[in-house]
Amino acid sequence: MIYPKIPLAQTVIQLCKAKQIQHIIISPGSRSAPLTIGFTNDDFFKCYSIVDERCAAFFAMGIAQQIKAPTALVCTSGSALLNYYPAVAEAYYSDIPLVVLSADRPKHLVGIGDGQTINQKNVYENHILYSANLKLDLKDEKKVPSNDELPIMKNLESKLERFLGLQKDIQEHNEQEINTAINFAKLKNGPVHINIPFDEPLYETVKTLSVSPKNNAIVKQPQEVDDYILKECIEDWSAASKKMILVGVHSPNKIQKQWLEELAKDDSVIVFTETTSNLHHKSFLPSIDQIIAPLSEEEQKALQPDILLTFGGLIVSKKIKAILRKFKPKQHWHIDEKQANDTFFCLTKHIETSPELFFKSLLTKVAHYKKSDYKPKWLKVKQKRLKKHEQYLSKIPFSDFTVFNTVLKHIPNNTVLQVGNSSAIRYTQLFSINKTLEVFCNRGTSGIDGSTSTAIGCAVANKKQTVFITGDLSFFYDSNALWNNYIPTNFRIIVVNNEGGGIFRILPGHKNTENFDTYFETRHQLNAAHLCKMFNFEYHTATDDTSLKQELNTFFSDSNTPKLLEIFTPKALNDEILLDYFKFIK
Amino acid sequence: MIYPKIPLAQTVIQLCKAKQIQHIIISPGSRSAPLTIGFTNDDFFKCYSIVDERCAAFFAMGIAQQIKAPTALVCTSGSALLNYYPAVAEAYYSDIPLVVLSADRPKHLVGIGDGQTINQKNVYENHILYSANLKLDLKDEKKVPSNDELPIMKNLESKLERFLGLQKDIQEHNEQEINTAINFAKLKNGPVHINIPFDEPLYETVKTLSVSPKNNAIVKQPQEVDDYILKECIEDWSAASKKMILVGVHSPNKIQKQWLEELAKDDSVIVFTETTSNLHHKSFLPSIDQIIAPLSEEEQKALQPDILLTFGGLIVSKKIKAILRKFKPKQHWHIDEKQANDTFFCLTKHIETSPELFFKSLLTKVAHYKKSDYKPKWLKVKQKRLKKHEQYLSKIPFSDFTVFNTVLKHIPNNTVLQVGNSSAIRYTQLFSINKTLEVFCNRGTSGIDGSTSTAIGCAVANKKQTVFITGDLSFFYDSNALWNNYIPTNFRIIVVNNEGGGIFRILPGHKNTENFDTYFETRHQLNAAHLCKMFNFEYHTATDDTSLKQELNTFFSDSNTPKLLEIFTPKALNDEILLDYFKFIK
Repeated sequence: MIYPKIPLAQTVIQLCKAKQIQHIIISPGSRSAPLTIGFTNDDFFKCYSIVDERCAAFFAMGIAQQIKAPTALVCTSGSALLNYYPAVAEAYYSDIPLVVLSADRPKHLVGIGDGQTINQKNVYENHILYSANLKLDLKDEKKVPSNDELPIMKNLESKLERFLGLQKDIQEHNEQEINTAINFAKLKNGPVHINIPFDEPLYETVKTLSVSPKNNAIVKQPQEVDDYILKECIEDWSAASKKMILVGVHSPNKIQKQWLEELAKDDSVIVFTETTSNLHHKSFLPSIDQIIAPLSEEEQKALQPDILLTFGGLIVSKKIKAILRKFKPKQHWHIDEKQANDTFFCLTKHIETSPELFFKSLLTKVAHYKKSDYKPKWLKVKQKRLKKHEQYLSKIPFSDFTVFNTVLKHIPNNTVLQVGNSSAIRYTQLFSINKTLEVFCNRGTSGIDGSTSTAIGCAVANKKQTVFITGDLSFFYDSNALWNNYIPTNFRIIVVNNEGGGIFRILPGHKNTENFDTYFETRHQLNAAHLCKMFNFEYHTATDDTSLKQELNTFFSDSNTPKLLEIFTPKALNDEILLDYFKFIK
Repeated sequence: MIYPKIPLAQTVIQLCKAKQIQHIIISPGSRSAPLTIGFTNDDFFKCYSIVDERCAAFFAMGIAQQIKAPTALVCTSGSALLNYYPAVAEAYYSDIPLVVLSADRPKHLVGIGDGQTINQKNVYENHILYSANLKLDLKDEKKVPSNDELPIMKNLESKLERFLGLQKDIQEHNEQEINTAINFAKLKNGPVHINIPFDEPLYETVKTLSVSPKNNAIVKQPQEVDDYILKECIEDWSAASKKMILVGVHSPNKIQKQWLEELAKDDSVIVFTETTSNLHHKSFLPSIDQIIAPLSEEEQKALQPDILLTFGGLIVSKKIKAILRKFKPKQHWHIDEKQANDTFFCLTKHIETSPELFFKSLLTKVAHYKKSDYKPKWLKVKQKRLKKHEQYLSKIPFSDFTVFNTVLKHIPNNTVLQVGNSSAIRYTQLFSINKTLEVFCNRGTSGIDGSTSTAIGCAVANKKQTVFITGDLSFFYDSNALWNNYIPTNFRIIVVNNEGGGIFRILPGHKNTENFDTYFETRHQLNAAHLCKMFNFEYHTATDDTSLKQELNTFFSDSNTPKLLEIFTPKALNDEILLDYFKFIK
């Protein structure tokens, strides 16, 4: 076996291995050579080479999102790690574990005008669970401070003494810091940063390890609800006749079906889900905006629950946030092992456990369903909207709206669906979704910056077929995502191209002025054909309903290369059709 | 005239105008609408719409680099401003003024799970001159804290009082912060961040301004050298018989020719310049690595100066840094109004003025040239190397090395040359450069992440023709740079495509193994043809010396679209030819 000679590199790599971090995404660089050499020469690791660090980080996040375990990123010193930042922030707000391993110059070469050197320490301060700043192994530092440089060290004796003493401390310090950082990523599900100084020579290798770092293993214990909190919850839950459950971004298959059935039987409980909630029941209320957007002030008030119970990540629907802030529930409970956002300015309880455990504790102890007309009433609204929805679809022309309807109906069972920001996920929310699909969207920061890379990471990690639906701006923004040698042939991209940021046309802006077109909608005449040729994707187009359906019939079948379907929609119609929709379904 | 209704937006825009910030680079977004509306409706401003914020920021930096004055960036809330970070760091280390105007949610919507919201405050902490965190105008905050929300405000009276009192303070605070930030950017030449919270409604406009913010104007005074420092300098300078001047990144035309002539006459002075120094004299020593790379230990010692005088930004040559750290000068003086890096661990004086002023003060007072063989000796080395250089060129095959020789000879007079990192600038350094060219390279962080965008910004700001020379990895990394509607038709890109990061083959790595090819060299088979079609560039190729010369004969002439020339070089030969070069010229 070949190892990097530098003990610090060995330490990092051995601890990653001990902690079962298997997927290593490497961007090219020289300062990081000790890590690259170590990871790529050990078959335990699955390494990926991705040049653009922005894409590399979103790709790593896509893998981590699927395997629910940390992936590691390796980059060189300088601005490289700044390009990770958009994905680091997304991982931070989406609770996805990610370990950034940035190589750095030795401390004495930082801030003195050396090349490719920035101030890497704590650079993600605002959006990181933990920043470990490792120290250089003195025995590998060729430039052990000489008497000239550090006048305090008067003679060789003191120098040696200091050397031997510090050496042990430094190895211990580094092991401890690496352990803490990775344990944080695993326990708290989020990004951590390990900054690693290396001195030259960087490329030397050895055949045996010179260190055996200690792995402080951690075991994640299920967190039970405190008895007194549970008791309060049972009492209040039993008494309330209007209970609303609202689910944010939520991984598939995390809650047993029996609890969903139990919730669905209770007339005093309504369950609002989003497409990203990955929870389904015929008595739940998906397509949240379809139901609530047309509500009058009075109807909004009627929706006001006694108890609002939330779990999962961020909520896509702006409308439900606005309504619940205006008509605040008496109580808001949020279930999450890590944190609770006070999204509606009325948070009363943070229930620190998993939804599964909470429902198990609560629902087995609640004696009876509360009599109520809360759910029956809103199920009627749902039925009415669905009928209107179908009527509306039958009367409108080809547009973003009809495209999402058609595309979502054609996606094969058991597909993993990745959706871009922001109009793509908002449109998707308006349609019933095939419940065998697993749906993901970068809603941590809701950026347009890395959705394609995330989807490709997901496709690599997941054995199922992955389909990515995106708008044109977001697709072109992350075009470097396609510069990736690991894309499975069954990966599919669907670009809904309305020649700009169509979503801005829906906002109360100044549309149809030149300023609007240029600076808000950002009109362009680009298409994806050239990128498909460049990166070897099979390219398909559709410009109307007939060609779309025709393409979709074969689009998901086996192929030798991944495929992209670009659907051109009429930009001037889309916004009117969407705005009219909310009026029509009232 | 149309103004955004929100006074805070008016304040920012009016102060930008008062401070003569004219170029505004806008990325699409809704939270930033008040700024976008204001800037784009005032003819004073020249606005640009660029979707990918990473490119937008490097583009803005390219303009600022040329006009030597701040440009402003406008983005929405969320991860948008993280994509600016690579350019912010480059601007920080390259002393380029840049004003980031990031829209943010109101404070009460940050950290509570609202969409597209991150912790924007002080996010560039490690690499920013000043971070201004503005506060929301209370009178525009629809959600002025109500009694329910802020229990301390017991009644309407106290609320009103607080409102009127704070209102004035907040406007003053914001004006002060904006003034401070922009003044910092102008005085200290670097990036500043102004974070600006806006509450809805965002799109309302008015016909008259409701605020008239006060501009605290600053005048940059030339900074004279202290007399006692100057006296010391004159004494030491006159006495020393070995003085080395080493110039880093340095804008063209900043030092009068008479001082260069004066320096050139003195036999005790050698002047090492880099391509990015933009200083020329037949008695200077350009192509620094050509001269010093082949030196034996003894010859390196002979180079050791009594006084090392440096000015300009970062030094490209690693070799001169290594030699001067090993054979330290007795004194190291650095001339710069802002700061002095202790690059060689022996800094003795930071002379806080401009090089022009210092030379004027020093050289008019130094009575005589010190007799010395220092310069004559090194000029002889130079002549020998130049002869060998020509011999070497005549015997080697077509390769990166010959390509840079040929290309640099063909670039028309008075062109602005932008060079990519890292092999492109290192090769360029080895050849004599036409002294009518102005040469720029992002050496602040030496990243490969934004050189194309910077070059395009430069081309937009500069009336001269801009030519950008880059390697393939750097070019593909920043391919979104071409998604830009402002590229002048006379802009030219030359991509030297050696199918990967050829520079890694020169490092002491493990070349010709599969791991090396994948993770260090990062081999690929991409070419620029598809991007040229996509973004409407005329595309040319060369694969040998004949086709290269033929292409170069017409490449710079007028055209209806910008052009790109892709030169394919033999990757397996390039590294050997470069390494042999340094042996041959010995």
